Formats: sequence, C-alpha cells, structure tokens
Amino acid sequence: MVQSQVLDRTFSALSDPTRRDILGILERGPASISDLAEPIGISLPGVLKHVRILEEANLVTTSKEGRTRECRLAPGDMDEVTDWIEHYRRLWERRLDRLEAYVERQQRKGDGR
Amino acid sequence: MVQSQVLDRTFSALSDPTRRDILGILERGPASISDLAEPIGISLPGVLKHVRILEEANLVTTSKEGRTRECRLAPGDMDEVTDWIEHYRRLWERRLDRLEAYVERQQRKGDGR
Repeated sequence: MVQSQVLDRTFSALSDPTRRDILGILERGPASISDLAEPIGISLPGVLKHVRILEEANLVTTSKEGRTRECRLAPGDMDEVTDWIEHYRRLWERRLDRLEAYVERQQRKGDGR
Repeated sequence: MVQSQVLDRTFSALSDPTRRDILGILERGPASISDLAEPIGISLPGVLKHVRILEEANLVTTSKEGRTRECRLAPGDMDEVTDWIEHYRRLWERRLDRLEAYVERQQRKGDGR
C-alpha cells in the first residue's frame, strides 16, 4: 500500500473520538465487542463498525474465540504517521527559530540606537 | 476547545491526500487559491473547501490580499497530536521490549537444555 493510503486510513481512523476511546480501553488488555460496547455506551453493531475501521488501519486485530470476537491493540502504521507529523513539526520549529533570530536582531538594532 | 475536538479536527483534516498536498505546496511559501488549484488539478471551489477545513484545524491561515486570498501554513495543534501519537508509540515500544525480553528468556531456557 502506498504511503498516502496508509496516512488516509490511519488519520481517518483516529479522527473519531469513539474509535480513540476503543483504543484507550484496549490499552488495558484484549476485550470482546460487548466488553467495549458497555463503557462506550453504543450498540454492538456500532462498536463492530468502528472496530472494522480500526482493523483496516492496522490499529486493532480481532480473532474469533468461540462465540465472541476478541479485539486486541495493534501497532498500526505508526512509523509512517510519526514521520509525517515529525516532518511538519520540524518545519515549524525551523520557522520559529528563524522568527526568534529575526526578533533578536531587531531588538539589538533597537538597543544600538 | 477540549483536546478531543482538537484531535477530531486535526486527524480529520490530515486524512485527505488533497489536503496533505495543499500543505506540501504551502511549505514552499504562501500561495493563492488559484496557485494551489493548478498543481492539484481541482476546481477553485474545490480547493477553497479543502482550505476551509485546514483553516478550521489551524493548519492554514488565509488573508484577503486585494482580490485574491493568500494561504499560509500554520502550526496547527501539533502538540496535542504529537502527544497522542507519542503515547501510542511508547505503549508499543514497551510491549515490544517485553516481547523481546520474553523471547530472550525462552531462548536461554532452550540453550540450557
């Protein structure tokens, strides 16, 4: 899968508060769809829909355990996402450094008057 | 704005490849809506729609310059987003460390047989 589609799926999966809540619950350990439905307060099909989206983004894996579906946290494609975010952050830090240097130069000019 | 809404808006804004392309073009410097429309190959209203979403996520600022609208890159709420991503990454690194330690223990047991 090309990097752009990885970013589409991951950012899109993470853009929903219910899906981030599901990840938060799974941090504590594996859970079934009904284990997730209770604290989140939505229907089983609703939870399943969100879990599917998280599964497509490789943020969750599921497996059938008897009659229940066990959900587990997965690492996702965090390297790609972190690279993208870090690139953006560094860009801003460089800009802020340049702005700071500019402000200092202007201040020194002011002091020299 | 609560952190959850910040994450909703930022992840949602970043989930579209056209919007990430717009940010990529603005890295090189400010651009008008038509400067953006040409390389991206979509209509002016289409670009404007994407720019509005980026603006709501504080990833772009715009200002009227005569008859054109100048777009500039903005830092967004990258601290919140980076914190969230970093939390998830660290969680995985800890899990991988534990897994590695477990595998090493099992290997040592195997060697000792």
